Amino acid sequence: MSRAIRVCVWGIGAMGAGVIKALSVKKGVEITTVIARGDKVGKRVDELVELLNPLPLIIQDVEEGLRLSNADVAILCTDSFVKTSKDKILACIERKMNVISIAEEMSYPYAADREIAELIHRKAKEHDVTVLGTGINPGFMMDALVIALTSVCTSVEQIEVSRVNSLSPFGKSVMHEQGVGISIAQFYQRQKEGTLAGHVGFDQSMAMMSEAFHIDFDRVEVKNRPIVSSINRVAPHATVDAGDVAGCDMIATAYVNEFPFITLKHPQQVEPQSEGIATGDYITIVGTPPVSMVITPEVDGGIGTIAMAVNSIPAVINAKSGIKTMIDLPLPRAILGDMRLYLEDELC
Amino acid sequence: MSRAIRVCVWGIGAMGAGVIKALSVKKGVEITTVIARGDKVGKRVDELVELLNPLPLIIQDVEEGLRLSNADVAILCTDSFVKTSKDKILACIERKMNVISIAEEMSYPYAADREIAELIHRKAKEHDVTVLGTGINPGFMMDALVIALTSVCTSVEQIEVSRVNSLSPFGKSVMHEQGVGISIAQFYQRQKEGTLAGHVGFDQSMAMMSEAFHIDFDRVEVKNRPIVSSINRVAPHATVDAGDVAGCDMIATAYVNEFPFITLKHPQQVEPQSEGIATGDYITIVGTPPVSMVITPEVDGGIGTIAMAVNSIPAVINAKSGIKTMIDLPLPRAILGDMRLYLEDELC
Repeated sequence: MSRAIRVCVWGIGAMGAGVIKALSVKKGVEITTVIARGDKVGKRVDELVELLNPLPLIIQDVEEGLRLSNADVAILCTDSFVKTSKDKILACIERKMNVISIAEEMSYPYAADREIAELIHRKAKEHDVTVLGTGINPGFMMDALVIALTSVCTSVEQIEVSRVNSLSPFGKSVMHEQGVGISIAQFYQRQKEGTLAGHVGFDQSMAMMSEAFHIDFDRVEVKNRPIVSSINRVAPHATVDAGDVAGCDMIATAYVNEFPFITLKHPQQVEPQSEGIATGDYITIVGTPPVSMVITPEVDGGIGTIAMAVNSIPAVINAKSGIKTMIDLPLPRAILGDMRLYLEDELC
Repeated sequence: MSRAIRVCVWGIGAMGAGVIKALSVKKGVEITTVIARGDKVGKRVDELVELLNPLPLIIQDVEEGLRLSNADVAILCTDSFVKTSKDKILACIERKMNVISIAEEMSYPYAADREIAELIHRKAKEHDVTVLGTGINPGFMMDALVIALTSVCTSVEQIEVSRVNSLSPFGKSVMHEQGVGISIAQFYQRQKEGTLAGHVGFDQSMAMMSEAFHIDFDRVEVKNRPIVSSINRVAPHATVDAGDVAGCDMIATAYVNEFPFITLKHPQQVEPQSEGIATGDYITIVGTPPVSMVITPEVDGGIGTIAMAVNSIPAVINAKSGIKTMIDLPLPRAILGDMRLYLEDELC
């Protein structure tokens, strides 16, 4: 068997730490570099991440981390957007590393910024590496899984996907992005100012499905309404008074010939159970045959994103160079055995 | 755009007729030959298959059908087994046709007969064509979909899949294969004689998952018990007296270190609703995170198999030569637009 697969993890927030933790118990793979910024630089990885086995690797800053990096794959856990990821991705490409990004927009980067996506694609081709964006959503629950489920259909008339989840496990920055705890007036004010991010990824999911089905949409409409709490809610990182905002109820609709062909519903709020709201993933395909799928509770967003990134490593190494999306790669799967067994060619 | 994709449909039973019907409304694809035997030969396809538009194609026997065939892909809807499919598949390969087979065993032919599978693989390579076995099960519900769902997991401890479906829509031959209407004593007698087929495909689903996860199983145990009806049941093609057999309750278990790692449960019976049994597809992954998926009612087996075959056409043309399984190909999907748009290279 070839040498272990070498991975550079860039970013050591909740997602980066989770990737390190998941990789630390996999066979056939080793973490060679961890890149971060601020006061994390210079610390040992296992000081910051709770691991079963010691990992006496020193966290590096960007410059030194890239210089030391001698990895097959870099996993980027730093951004949500194509624009803010661009320089990091290009730096990895120039170091001849394949790239897996959990930036939501990178799951279908052409939908966010065609120019940057084309530049990344060209550079990846030049350096013979692959760039994949993945994650639980976008990346799987509201796009790749939906696409795979349609394979049992001879015709598809309409698709409705709903992911109902709790924001309670997330920290203060997510509470802010999703407007948790603010008043209805503040919600609309921030929406007007463009400072209410809500869910990032509808455009990516829709573009992936447009490509998968080879259907052009007339337009994609995205709506974001406040989820107004009728009771007081207390979450670990936010409190919501009755009448205030518990989260964002986002809906995207893709129209074909003025007909709503795909609808994605993604209400996210703190403590949904306090008002009797069951969380879950729901996919309904109106077609021949009809398909009605339910996953309850919803697939955990944090662990799911970490898993999608880690499980994509061999497929990204095996793939041809350039930007790939989840619909270009073979059927995704959990990596349970030695990761090297999943490689088509030995590493050298 | 290139010329239309040319398809030869071999077999015009319920599945072959369904494939013809599905293809007849797709864009960018045309049926060039239909092969059958017996008194169907010489008849017009649209005499036997109810179609929206006339299809004045004459059904050919094997020899003449193969001689006339000038197709990119042959869809074989004739057999369940590798042994009985072998000659037909090799004949198609020699005519330079890619092959999609709905024979259950062809979904992972190495599990049924390694020698024949290797011969088919070698011949397919020689003639630069691809051979895929697919269908609803094996092919998707109890293997490919399970594998895809594990991609959200960082670890998987145990997998249980259950497909509970009704046999009522099927004809007399399925009633016989599944022992519907016979006594319990007859069930065990036929089981002893080896004339009770039940579900074909557990070995394929397990082998596909073994390869996908790179885990060797100690052994796979398959059990088949009678589903005994406590009431009289009347189905279109069978009647079952109280105390007699309504179908087969089949269970396959794959052991790893003597632990039941994967369990597949597939009870099939006529009129399950008459005893309050809800049909459905159920996938439970004990892992991190846990995943509990339900599709109710179950995905229709007949239409599902037809869809899997038709939707695989472009992926099979795009694939490298040799035998492929569902885990080798890109994410499966419904073909909704012009089928030629899904091709990587123009046909010539």
